[in-house]
Amino acid sequence: MGRAVEIVEPGGRRWRGTLVPSHEMSGARIVQLKLESGYNVGLAISPDFRVELLLPGPDPEEPRTREPAPGASATPVGPPKDSVDLLTTGGTIASRVDYRTGGVRPVRDEREILAFYPDLAKGGKVRIVPVLDRLSEEIVPADWELLAHRVAESFADGARGVVIAHGTDTLGYTAAALSFLLADLPGPVVLVGAQRSPDRPSSDGVSNLSAAVRIARETDLGEVVVVMHAGTSDGRFAIHRGTKVRKMHSSRRDAFRSRNTAPIGHLDAGEVRLEEPYRPSSKGPTHVEGRLDPRGALVWFYPGLDPDRVADLVRDLRGVVLAGTGLGHVSSAHLGWIRQAVARGVVVAMTTQCLEGEADPYVYSTGRELLRSGVVYLGDMLPEVAYVKLLWALGASEEPSEVARRLREDRAGEVSARHLVREP
Amino acid sequence: MGRAVEIVEPGGRRWRGTLVPSHEMSGARIVQLKLESGYNVGLAISPDFRVELLLPGPDPEEPRTREPAPGASATPVGPPKDSVDLLTTGGTIASRVDYRTGGVRPVRDEREILAFYPDLAKGGKVRIVPVLDRLSEEIVPADWELLAHRVAESFADGARGVVIAHGTDTLGYTAAALSFLLADLPGPVVLVGAQRSPDRPSSDGVSNLSAAVRIARETDLGEVVVVMHAGTSDGRFAIHRGTKVRKMHSSRRDAFRSRNTAPIGHLDAGEVRLEEPYRPSSKGPTHVEGRLDPRGALVWFYPGLDPDRVADLVRDLRGVVLAGTGLGHVSSAHLGWIRQAVARGVVVAMTTQCLEGEADPYVYSTGRELLRSGVVYLGDMLPEVAYVKLLWALGASEEPSEVARRLREDRAGEVSARHLVREP
Repeated sequence: MGRAVEIVEPGGRRWRGTLVPSHEMSGARIVQLKLESGYNVGLAISPDFRVELLLPGPDPEEPRTREPAPGASATPVGPPKDSVDLLTTGGTIASRVDYRTGGVRPVRDEREILAFYPDLAKGGKVRIVPVLDRLSEEIVPADWELLAHRVAESFADGARGVVIAHGTDTLGYTAAALSFLLADLPGPVVLVGAQRSPDRPSSDGVSNLSAAVRIARETDLGEVVVVMHAGTSDGRFAIHRGTKVRKMHSSRRDAFRSRNTAPIGHLDAGEVRLEEPYRPSSKGPTHVEGRLDPRGALVWFYPGLDPDRVADLVRDLRGVVLAGTGLGHVSSAHLGWIRQAVARGVVVAMTTQCLEGEADPYVYSTGRELLRSGVVYLGDMLPEVAYVKLLWALGASEEPSEVARRLREDRAGEVSARHLVREP
Repeated sequence: MGRAVEIVEPGGRRWRGTLVPSHEMSGARIVQLKLESGYNVGLAISPDFRVELLLPGPDPEEPRTREPAPGASATPVGPPKDSVDLLTTGGTIASRVDYRTGGVRPVRDEREILAFYPDLAKGGKVRIVPVLDRLSEEIVPADWELLAHRVAESFADGARGVVIAHGTDTLGYTAAALSFLLADLPGPVVLVGAQRSPDRPSSDGVSNLSAAVRIARETDLGEVVVVMHAGTSDGRFAIHRGTKVRKMHSSRRDAFRSRNTAPIGHLDAGEVRLEEPYRPSSKGPTHVEGRLDPRGALVWFYPGLDPDRVADLVRDLRGVVLAGTGLGHVSSAHLGWIRQAVARGVVVAMTTQCLEGEADPYVYSTGRELLRSGVVYLGDMLPEVAYVKLLWALGASEEPSEVARRLREDRAGEVSARHLVREP
């Protein structure tokens, strides 16, 4: 074990945890800390760092904060350091313009992908594994399970990290699904897409993919992340947690945004920086934990939504996620079907259609009434992520109370302990 | 008529239109321009302004850019300048903490409202008109029609502007509904809410309401707008167009954000500035144009959404707005019910669940196929706004093609000619 320390960043932010060996990350000098939550955080070394030793160690006079004790180990073992698997699924990143119709169509041939991305394997071995060949709006929950198994196989075959090229339309949903399905990841799983097709001069596919491969190869992330352009400058990419990201614009390159949290890190001007706590890679082996039960739905509430129609909709479902207004409200006209559904064992969960902030039942009488009616409040979980998690929780248990317990419990960073109040 | 000019702002933005008399707006020196679109824009005078006369006028040597020709008239006539009606509907702005339960409950007594806001009428007459007394998640489309009629009555009774105090949960939906229902507004209709109840020290109700009353009293807006805190500083409020605004956070004071456009203006440090084009007040009389047909629905698409369930849902509806992925896509499994519904005369419209950017059918094969199947693409209209507009368009005609035409046609700024690429 490393030393237990508290580090105070120049800005005043405090981190308490145990020092672990730093990985080489883009040559940046990083102190890596394992937090009490089990997550790691990488902190760029600055001269204004304040480090406090929390427990007496063998040599308290010389707290070696920048050189962690030898033998400390959270380092992933096994796979060769440079081998990355690229799983392709279709989508714009593997599409091209059909000059007959002017529309964009998926390419179905692995060689075509390499033709678009000739520099792909420059930094190390990249093995291309075609899994699906469709636009992402065609992807269904069964595909998420297939992808999860393929990711597990890639790691079993010795990949250091896995990149998944995916259409951007439902990329966020797939990232959430893999986050719930995959356990004990020995390396990063990086989803990446393109907003413009690779045969267009303005394509973002090449730079996004090359950023994704670097992050899969060079970081010790043990999480599913989404890597896409950030902001308007060419060389900046965000590393979003797979359960906290959403496509927030239909066409911009920087359409993907983390909600209720900052991105885990960035690749900026050639340097990878992990700036927020993350789950480090495990010793593996990774495995697919659970399965998805499709008997769940997502319902967006709005004024005039007919309670009878929702009652019909949930008749043979086992669970439903509501995207309510504000802090997680629906009109009292919906209490009837909610109570009947809960009595039948249907899990009714609540999120907020604001997308930012929390669903909180304790502020208004409406929330208290919904809570009393058996609605499960999911804090700052995104509605779409809550829907994906519902299918996973339903797959894990037949028992409504156990499904509700799993829904509420943080599994892959989908619920923030406290959400950061930052501008988007 | 005033002079036709082109004004180039210091930043390079160009405005072409006709000068109209400036109103006194918070003492700021403003040049007001009527654009060719019929909208007005107020530009703060700066020494770096460049003004070009476009047509020969009676005195081309002296383009009186800052003193419009006398007799020019877009000024609203009639109501006394200082009289504002405050319509109350319930919601946090007219709620208080129930110290028995700790929850927040609406107040039902007009005197209680005045007790919270003793300074309300400081700047001029404010008449309180209770209309509803419920939290906004309880509001239904029939309430939007009632409110529209009450607004028209207020103007008929001589109000210069109307403020509507409304719960924030569905405030955006009501703002959109009033934008479509009210025609020829002779003054501003300002919706305002509070994120914290007025008996709490941190309440934003007092400052929001006082900003709303000032904007209703001092501007020549002929539109429905939403006025709420902007950003984190205390004295800054945004004036959002009623059809372009959405609650984007469940609890922040600055939860309301304009999407795909900048706010029309701000009240900042005591000054009202109208920075973007707006529709100026009409000579009136205002009237409620049309009615709402509740046989419409909003359906959020997601991977795994069962096409049969949606087919059931739309069985006895006249229209449905889809919130598709990306540029406005759903999986091809949904083409069946879409084609059948369209054949039956159901209007199927498409928006994007990204919330920003446009639904555009011409980029991908999926969009082209949906377009061929009869789906009406609604550009950058927000899904919730499109749903509200659908009810209004259904109320206006029995003919699907006419409903579709009205849905697509801009009525109250809900579709931007081109959306601005600005950070939120």
